[in-house]
Amino acid sequence: MVDYVKVMHDDLRRFTAECFIKFGVPKDDAEVIADHLVLANLRGVDSHGVVRIPHYIEGIKKGFVNATSNTKVVKESQAITIIDGGNGLGIPIANKATDIVISKCKAVGIAAVGVRNLGHVGMLAYYTMKMTKSNLIGLAVVNAPSRVAPWGGGEPVFGTNPISIAFPTRGKPIVIDMATSAIAAFKIRLAAMKGEKIPEGIALTKDGRPTTDPKEAYEGVLLPFGGYKGYALSLAIEVLAGILPGGLLSRYVISHASTQGGFFALAIDPVAFRDYSEYLNDIDKLISVLKTCKPAQGFKEVLLPGEPEDRTYEDRIRNGIPIDLSTWKLLTDVANELNVKLPKVI
Amino acid sequence: MVDYVKVMHDDLRRFTAECFIKFGVPKDDAEVIADHLVLANLRGVDSHGVVRIPHYIEGIKKGFVNATSNTKVVKESQAITIIDGGNGLGIPIANKATDIVISKCKAVGIAAVGVRNLGHVGMLAYYTMKMTKSNLIGLAVVNAPSRVAPWGGGEPVFGTNPISIAFPTRGKPIVIDMATSAIAAFKIRLAAMKGEKIPEGIALTKDGRPTTDPKEAYEGVLLPFGGYKGYALSLAIEVLAGILPGGLLSRYVISHASTQGGFFALAIDPVAFRDYSEYLNDIDKLISVLKTCKPAQGFKEVLLPGEPEDRTYEDRIRNGIPIDLSTWKLLTDVANELNVKLPKVI
Repeated sequence: MVDYVKVMHDDLRRFTAECFIKFGVPKDDAEVIADHLVLANLRGVDSHGVVRIPHYIEGIKKGFVNATSNTKVVKESQAITIIDGGNGLGIPIANKATDIVISKCKAVGIAAVGVRNLGHVGMLAYYTMKMTKSNLIGLAVVNAPSRVAPWGGGEPVFGTNPISIAFPTRGKPIVIDMATSAIAAFKIRLAAMKGEKIPEGIALTKDGRPTTDPKEAYEGVLLPFGGYKGYALSLAIEVLAGILPGGLLSRYVISHASTQGGFFALAIDPVAFRDYSEYLNDIDKLISVLKTCKPAQGFKEVLLPGEPEDRTYEDRIRNGIPIDLSTWKLLTDVANELNVKLPKVI
Repeated sequence: MVDYVKVMHDDLRRFTAECFIKFGVPKDDAEVIADHLVLANLRGVDSHGVVRIPHYIEGIKKGFVNATSNTKVVKESQAITIIDGGNGLGIPIANKATDIVISKCKAVGIAAVGVRNLGHVGMLAYYTMKMTKSNLIGLAVVNAPSRVAPWGGGEPVFGTNPISIAFPTRGKPIVIDMATSAIAAFKIRLAAMKGEKIPEGIALTKDGRPTTDPKEAYEGVLLPFGGYKGYALSLAIEVLAGILPGGLLSRYVISHASTQGGFFALAIDPVAFRDYSEYLNDIDKLISVLKTCKPAQGFKEVLLPGEPEDRTYEDRIRNGIPIDLSTWKLLTDVANELNVKLPKVI
C-alpha cells in the first residue's frame, strides 16, 4: 500500500509561496518560506516541511504570529545585532538576521545576531547552510514552547531547543542539526498512532515517572538527550536564544507549531584564523579519517552529520518528494480554502 | 578504612607551585598551574587536580611538553587571535589566551582565540569561570589524544573533546564542563581495578563489539555520549579546537596525560545585547524556574550545572582536600625527587 503521493520540488515551492501570498504574506517573504519548507522536505526533514503550511496559517488566524512583520533592529554594533521580529512569521525574519550576521562576520571575523519576538523559524540547518555558502562556519539555536524536563526534573522547562552547526568543506557542508531532547515530539505521536512502545529513558509521565507508553509520554514530559549533558546544552541554548536577545523563556512561549522562543546565530570566518585552503585541506583530512574508519559491529559505515539528509536530497530532487496522505489532506484543505492549485501528483 | 589523606588548599597550592618551579617552570606559570590544579581538586574534579603533577613532569622529561613556553601570536585582528604555544605546558598558555579573549570581547562584544601546539590545559571550567568574573559568557573547547569512536565507527578518531560553557549570574556562575565521550577514561580504569562492570552503550572492544567489561573497553574505544548527537558535538569541537587554530587532529596527538590537541575559546558580552541588569534578572528567573521544578521520580532536586562542584568546593575549602592514597604516593615520590616539602596532612 502506498500511503503517500509524490510531487516535484519546484511545483511544491510554487504552491507553498502562493498559499502564503494569498494569505497576505509579502511576496518576498512567501518565497523564502516556500524555499525553506521545500528544502526541509527535500532533505527528509518532513516535520519541518510543508506540513507546517496549515499550522503557520492557523497561527496567523489565531493571532500567534503576524503575516507581515514589522522587524526592527533594536541594538547594533560592528559584530552584534539584536532584532525585534514584531511577532512576524519566523522564517523570513531569521533569514534576514542570517544575512546580517554573514555580512558582519565577513568584516570582523566573528559576529552574532539575536532575535526576539518571532514565529517558528523552521529547520535551523537552513541558516547555517546559508552561512557555509559564504565560506563561514555557522551556528544557530532557538528555544521553543516547553516540552522537556531538566535532568532530575519532572516538569517541562525547556523547548526541544535545537542546535545547528555547519562547516564549509570543498564538497557539501558538514551539517549538524539536532534537538537537545531525547526524541522529537512528533515521533511520540507516531508511536501512539501505531500502538508501539517508545524506548526507555526518553520521557516521563505527567507525574514524573519513567514511561515507555507514548500516550503517557505525550501527556507528560520529554527528557533531554544524553542525560545531564543534554540538559546542560539545553540550558545553554535557553540563555543564548531566549535570554540574550531579550526574548521569552521557553516556559512562557505559546505552545503552537507556528511559535518559537528566540533565535541566536553566530558566524565564524575561518579566514580570520588561517589560510582558507589550509582549513579546507584539514577538513578533507578529517573527512577522510571518518569515512575510512572501520565500522562498529552492526554498522556499515560512518556517516558525516548531514550525509543522510544529503542522500535523501539527491533522491528527492530527481524523483520527487513523498507527502504522506494525512499531510496531503491538510494541504488539499488549504488549497481549497485559498483557491490555490495543488501541486501535480507525479 | 580511610583510603585518603586530607590537606589544606593553600598548602597544596604552595607545594604544587614549588614542584614546578624546581623543575624549571617560570614562577608566574607555576603559580597559575598550582591555582588551576588546586581549584580542580576543590571542585571535586580530582582527575584534573594535583594527580596531574607527576604526569606533567613526566611529559616534560619525555619531551612531550616544554617547561618554558615560547608563545607567539601568529595571527591577530580586533576580535580574533591565533597563538602558537611553542609546545609549552598548556595551563599558563590557555590562561593567557583567555586574558586576551576577555580583553578583545570587552572591546568588540564577541571574540575568539585559538591556540595550537600546547600541552594539557586541565579543567576547561577554569577558563570559562574566569570569563564570567569579567561578566562575560565564556565557551572553551579542546581536542585531545584519540579515545572516542565516531557514531557507527569502531576505531578512536576523537579525543574526549570536552566543552565548557559558563554564564555569569548574580550569584555563582552557571558552569557546564563535560566530555563529549559517554564516560571518562579514568572511570573505566577504576571499574577495572574494582572488578566492576561498566554500563552498556559506552564502550566497544578493539574489534568494535559492544562491551561491559572495563578491561576490554580500556583496550578498545569509548563511545560518544548521547549516540550520534554526542558524535556531532565531538566533531564540531574537533574542527573548532583542532583545525581552526591550525593544530593537530586528535588522531595525531601523542597519547599522554600532559598532551592536548588545540584550544579554542569564545567570549560573548551580554552588554552588547542588552542592559546587564535585565540579563541578570532573566537569569534569576531561569534559575528560579529550575530550582522550583518538581523533581522526577527518584530525584530530590534539580541541580544547576556546576552546583555539585560548588558544594564540594564549599566543603573542601573549609575542611580540606582529600587525596587518595595512590595519588599521595605519586606526590610523595615527586616531593622526594625534587626535595619539596609535602603539604601537611591534617
